Amino acid sequence: MTDAATLAARVRDGDLRLYELEDHADAATAAAARRHLLAEEVGADLDTIADYAFDAAVADANVENMIGATQIPLAIAGPLPIDGECTSDAVYLPLATTEGALVASVNRGAAAIRDAGEASTRVLKRGMTRAPVFSVANVEEAAAVADWVRASFDDLAAAAESTTSHGELQEVTPYVVGDSVFLRFSYDTKDAMGMNMATIATRAAAEVVEEETPASLVAVSGNLCTDKKPAAINAIQGRGRSVAADVFLPSEVVEARFGTTAEAIAEVNTRKNLIGSAKAASFGFNAHVANVVAAAFLATGQDIAQVVEGANAITSVEARESGLYASVTLPSLAVGTVGGGTKLPTQSEALDILGIAGGGDPPGSNGDALAEVVAAGALAGELSLLGALAGRHLASAHAEHGR
Amino acid sequence: MTDAATLAARVRDGDLRLYELEDHADAATAAAARRHLLAEEVGADLDTIADYAFDAAVADANVENMIGATQIPLAIAGPLPIDGECTSDAVYLPLATTEGALVASVNRGAAAIRDAGEASTRVLKRGMTRAPVFSVANVEEAAAVADWVRASFDDLAAAAESTTSHGELQEVTPYVVGDSVFLRFSYDTKDAMGMNMATIATRAAAEVVEEETPASLVAVSGNLCTDKKPAAINAIQGRGRSVAADVFLPSEVVEARFGTTAEAIAEVNTRKNLIGSAKAASFGFNAHVANVVAAAFLATGQDIAQVVEGANAITSVEARESGLYASVTLPSLAVGTVGGGTKLPTQSEALDILGIAGGGDPPGSNGDALAEVVAAGALAGELSLLGALAGRHLASAHAEHGR
Amino acid sequence: MTDAATLAARVRDGDLRLYELEDHADAATAAAARRHLLAEEVGADLDTIADYAFDAAVADANVENMIGATQIPLAIAGPLPIDGECTSDAVYLPLATTEGALVASVNRGAAAIRDAGEASTRVLKRGMTRAPVFSVANVEEAAAVADWVRASFDDLAAAAESTTSHGELQEVTPYVVGDSVFLRFSYDTKDAMGMNMATIATRAAAEVVEEETPASLVAVSGNLCTDKKPAAINAIQGRGRSVAADVFLPSEVVEARFGTTAEAIAEVNTRKNLIGSAKAASFGFNAHVANVVAAAFLATGQDIAQVVEGANAITSVEARESGLYASVTLPSLAVGTVGGGTKLPTQSEALDILGIAGGGDPPGSNGDALAEVVAAGALAGELSLLGALAGRHLASAHAEHGR
Amino acid sequence: MTDAATLAARVRDGDLRLYELEDHADAATAAAARRHLLAEEVGADLDTIADYAFDAAVADANVENMIGATQIPLAIAGPLPIDGECTSDAVYLPLATTEGALVASVNRGAAAIRDAGEASTRVLKRGMTRAPVFSVANVEEAAAVADWVRASFDDLAAAAESTTSHGELQEVTPYVVGDSVFLRFSYDTKDAMGMNMATIATRAAAEVVEEETPASLVAVSGNLCTDKKPAAINAIQGRGRSVAADVFLPSEVVEARFGTTAEAIAEVNTRKNLIGSAKAASFGFNAHVANVVAAAFLATGQDIAQVVEGANAITSVEARESGLYASVTLPSLAVGTVGGGTKLPTQSEALDILGIAGGGDPPGSNGDALAEVVAAGALAGELSLLGALAGRHLASAHAEHGR
Repeated sequence: MTDAATLAARVRDGDLRLYELEDHADAATAAAARRHLLAEEVGADLDTIADYAFDAAVADANVENMIGATQIPLAIAGPLPIDGECTSDAVYLPLATTEGALVASVNRGAAAIRDAGEASTRVLKRGMTRAPVFSVANVEEAAAVADWVRASFDDLAAAAESTTSHGELQEVTPYVVGDSVFLRFSYDTKDAMGMNMATIATRAAAEVVEEETPASLVAVSGNLCTDKKPAAINAIQGRGRSVAADVFLPSEVVEARFGTTAEAIAEVNTRKNLIGSAKAASFGFNAHVANVVAAAFLATGQDIAQVVEGANAITSVEARESGLYASVTLPSLAVGTVGGGTKLPTQSEALDILGIAGGGDPPGSNGDALAEVVAAGALAGELSLLGALAGRHLASAHAEHGR
Repeated sequence: MTDAATLAARVRDGDLRLYELEDHADAATAAAARRHLLAEEVGADLDTIADYAFDAAVADANVENMIGATQIPLAIAGPLPIDGECTSDAVYLPLATTEGALVASVNRGAAAIRDAGEASTRVLKRGMTRAPVFSVANVEEAAAVADWVRASFDDLAAAAESTTSHGELQEVTPYVVGDSVFLRFSYDTKDAMGMNMATIATRAAAEVVEEETPASLVAVSGNLCTDKKPAAINAIQGRGRSVAADVFLPSEVVEARFGTTAEAIAEVNTRKNLIGSAKAASFGFNAHVANVVAAAFLATGQDIAQVVEGANAITSVEARESGLYASVTLPSLAVGTVGGGTKLPTQSEALDILGIAGGGDPPGSNGDALAEVVAAGALAGELSLLGALAGRHLASAHAEHGR
Repeated sequence: MTDAATLAARVRDGDLRLYELEDHADAATAAAARRHLLAEEVGADLDTIADYAFDAAVADANVENMIGATQIPLAIAGPLPIDGECTSDAVYLPLATTEGALVASVNRGAAAIRDAGEASTRVLKRGMTRAPVFSVANVEEAAAVADWVRASFDDLAAAAESTTSHGELQEVTPYVVGDSVFLRFSYDTKDAMGMNMATIATRAAAEVVEEETPASLVAVSGNLCTDKKPAAINAIQGRGRSVAADVFLPSEVVEARFGTTAEAIAEVNTRKNLIGSAKAASFGFNAHVANVVAAAFLATGQDIAQVVEGANAITSVEARESGLYASVTLPSLAVGTVGGGTKLPTQSEALDILGIAGGGDPPGSNGDALAEVVAAGALAGELSLLGALAGRHLASAHAEHGR
Repeated sequence: MTDAATLAARVRDGDLRLYELEDHADAATAAAARRHLLAEEVGADLDTIADYAFDAAVADANVENMIGATQIPLAIAGPLPIDGECTSDAVYLPLATTEGALVASVNRGAAAIRDAGEASTRVLKRGMTRAPVFSVANVEEAAAVADWVRASFDDLAAAAESTTSHGELQEVTPYVVGDSVFLRFSYDTKDAMGMNMATIATRAAAEVVEEETPASLVAVSGNLCTDKKPAAINAIQGRGRSVAADVFLPSEVVEARFGTTAEAIAEVNTRKNLIGSAKAASFGFNAHVANVVAAAFLATGQDIAQVVEGANAITSVEARESGLYASVTLPSLAVGTVGGGTKLPTQSEALDILGIAGGGDPPGSNGDALAEVVAAGALAGELSLLGALAGRHLASAHAEHGR
């Protein structure tokens, strides 16, 4: 009987719990024991899940109850030439996806951008947020606590920053609803996505609030952060990186790459991305930005659930005499090149493809670069899908006139 | 010189394009050639990316320009006992994630549910949607087209269903904005998530609209679908599966598992998930449902960008005399057990853990079961996080009173 | 001592309550008594408030604790030529407002529409809604109640319609959130705005739900109606009348009336009404529709608080070779020509200006006509403001180039 | 032939335009001429509209094309005892409305508040906003303009404040979407609602932006203000006054006034105002705040179209051992006691009832007081309606148990 089998038997017998296996074996054996258990209990053959290419112990900080790995096809699109503040080269964008045609679509957009020269990108704002909620006695006390917070930034910053060597508290904004007070803390977390850093720092600052005011902490996150939920506060004020990318495509490029015109693309953008999204009461005025965000996040070890905020993008398009101006603005893109899943082997290698694994010099520049790359990739994806839709529209319009 | 090196050289020389490699070599060699190219152009060592455990050709329908695979740690939480319409057993929920503590959190919630007996789940509505946008001459024509559509369901259904052996058109709803007409088609797509099926069927129906009315198709998706963007239309009307899960936890369970009370958890839910989300102008009135949705989607081969709609969940909690009632309702969960990434080896194995790989009997039952499992998992995650927050709140409140 | 003074003294002495005065005097004297009381208690001289031009008893159903009347300047804009289904003439639009320049602005827009011929209008949908919320035991029961409702339309309609001679139940849609079930009832209420009719009818239908299912009514309005709150459900699905108006302005008209071009107006609309509103996470993609809705509502005796839903409008604009196409679509305009404030003298006279006081022939046609008139007025207001902004933008652009 | 008749004939003959009448006669005669014209053209008898109680010339700044006045029944509710920063007395709240039962409802709530002692109110934030939109060349330029704005507050403030003796620029926040830059200016406008002041000041500041940067003004309002449209930016960040009111009602008061319990009211609030509004994707988590806002706005000469923002309120309720805590928070209440319609006779008298007509001492205190009064009135309305719903629910529950 193998170690794994023995351990699985002990779990089945109630002698051990599923999550205690790592106390009795190395990480790989613990994972094997869980697979063994599953094989017996549900009859599942997990050979491919077992065939992972990293040291199980490495994933220790990323997962509990590990049984192996999920493998997602990884591809590249590009080269995608970018003129940003932290990116000034053509990059190959790593994309992990199971959605056929997505990479081809981004690739086609990248080709159009190459034809036109390059995409420009700018990080417009940085700030990972955490917003605890406090209870107070009543509205009067809420107003007083909010006033105290506005007057006590330095104390709050000192407490918050005592917990981190990198993070900087940038802003604390109070929001009052009856006898609840929400404080939205915003941090520059440099090359880390920074959710953990922000949480720990905010917890320390919240203690100061509790000591100095009558407010009582109810939850370190009061949902005004807003993490992993679609929320207007992120779409308006930003979270993580606010980043934009744009390009001007000469008419010849529009015609050559998409077989359509700037006017036709502008019409699709207006009716679909602007008016359609308006009618749907959406926070996402774009075609499929989430696809690119999700695939790039997966490839580079980002927190996948933050694709939710990443989808809050506005695509704008203008038909001009000589071609098409297009932009994509992502107000709340949560990215990092250190921490989280970024140090896992395949993810780290994907960051190497971009030349931005680990901390940047200066700090924050790798995080900014990743944001710029994702924005440029999203722009490529938007151009490609809008171009395809417009091309079909134009073709059908021609057919109709030809009748 | 290997084949891969030769091919890479041809790409570098401009003799071949990146996406044409599969025309000149098998899928694995083509991927190797791209890695070779990257190694030379950006100096990245992609050994782990190269070490994937599936046949590259299998991923053909899921990706273009493949270079290998991203590996995400895969874990299980459970057993999670579920009383649903398509699930009536305890399951081990497969979760792929890089976020430390997530699986442990869901596991803790699952333990509380086990203590309480089981979670109940129900699929409330099914319907994958696609909403093309048409242009018309003016408001008068828009009204006439909308009227025609309302009167012509059978014709549209015939056209739509001619393209699919499984899908059924359930509903077409017209929405008019000026001279744009949006038609939201909703399909029962059985065990497929159904986005492709819905797109193809809608394209056929749109041709009928163009033939029979003066409307001209602008885009097969007019963003009222709404796919992969946060939008109220999904939160209100649903998309994919609308599914809910609930449980009643006796006070002893709340105390034993979370060291807190039903009242404390209810306060956290009200201030954070309801009032906090209200103030953030959010579509997600929950704590971290997207985490569970994302991890389960990744594990089981779902479309990751649809985590966006999956995050539209409302968590409700009520403190009762004898314990805590809690529910999670996810109006727009896009899931399937056939198509997309579900047939990739690790993903298919993960579905095997749940016993629902492939088409269900009756058709749709595996898709429903997956929705139920994700909802129950989300409930476990909510209970666990709310419990932890409330436990800390209670502890801190005690400490305060002890001063 | 007058009667009023005596009565005021009795209120001051605690012998009578403020709202009991009508039990002891006629309506005018009761109002006088309250003014007397105010004069003594707060020293306010209410001579103008006292100088109202209608019989106090007439307002009995509209107000309690009356002290007199508020007088709002009333004006007309027009003539505004309309080609609708229930309006096919040029009308003078009555507008009550205190906002200087508003009437002039609508008037300017009306002039442009006259130059162009006429505005077209269409009522796209009718349906006054009321959505009670019920509590049930759990998710399982919620699903069962929703199913029962879907299968029991006829029974619900019979109960609902037993309470009204005019209203027709059109639709009941169930929405489940955990152990809450919301049923959105939609009625054709003909020429009445219909909120009261819908409430009474829904109460009767809710009794049937309580009798036939385990659901227990918590509140006859569960906020999915949604009455007098900004809500996406109204913006998407409509409430009251969904109505649109549009016009094509030849370039000469744009130039003559606004001193600008179709292109400049289109740019203002895109950047302000579409992109700006998107960034604000708004349900109102328009310039100032609420101004016209509010002024027309005030003039014609509508429920002023429903300006809230009335503001959910989308303005679209397209620059074409020969001029400007513009439309305004209001999905949730709650209007009526019978009931509410419509029978008050000044309000009824204002409806006479439009020729639509009282019930229409066929029933509903006056309500439709009012919706069409408001939509056309809103279109005039949008054209005028967008034109003014674009004119200034163009002027400033010219000045800049002239430097 | 009267002057009015003569003038009407000249309009009919095309000799004069409708809006030119004031150039040829005094205001009252001009209004009479328009009525004459209407009598002839549409046969409407406008006797009551003609019977207004103010000097037509006084309304000159409030309206064009005047024909008379709309008269709305005006009532009072109260006394309503308030403990605010600018109100510390019991007030009679003037409410103009045509909705039967509204005043009685607020009055009942006021009685409950009296029984409990008083309502507390606090103004949490002040700031009338205007947000022009500028076009720039591209994303790079947008980022540079935003940076310039952040660094140039003093210059912008100097320009803005040069146009006003009262207003103070508090903040300018840039928002970038592609090649559009929105600047949200926020002003302390003291006792004025301040929309005009903010517009004029912003226009001056915008000129500085145009001079100092490459940005070009497209529209002085870019819809991020957001004026008279439902928008999350107002619900989150506030506009005009952010104000809250709360009260604690002992159980005896809840029982005596509403015949129900704190628990029953809390259940109604949770299922209707919180969960129902969440499901409706609403910005208004309340029962009928807009009713009170609208009636108070009408009575006191506010801009009625701003009821739209006024409806963005959250009502919170908590059942405690000894009674009910309730609060209402209105983030975006646009009020003033000078300017606009406040100087019209009936409106000014209504402000006299509150003792706050005209500018306050210190400046802004009257505006704050009006906000506090409206908030307290809204609280009274919420309590009353929630109490009535809960009373009925309880009664029905009792009846059910009694079966």
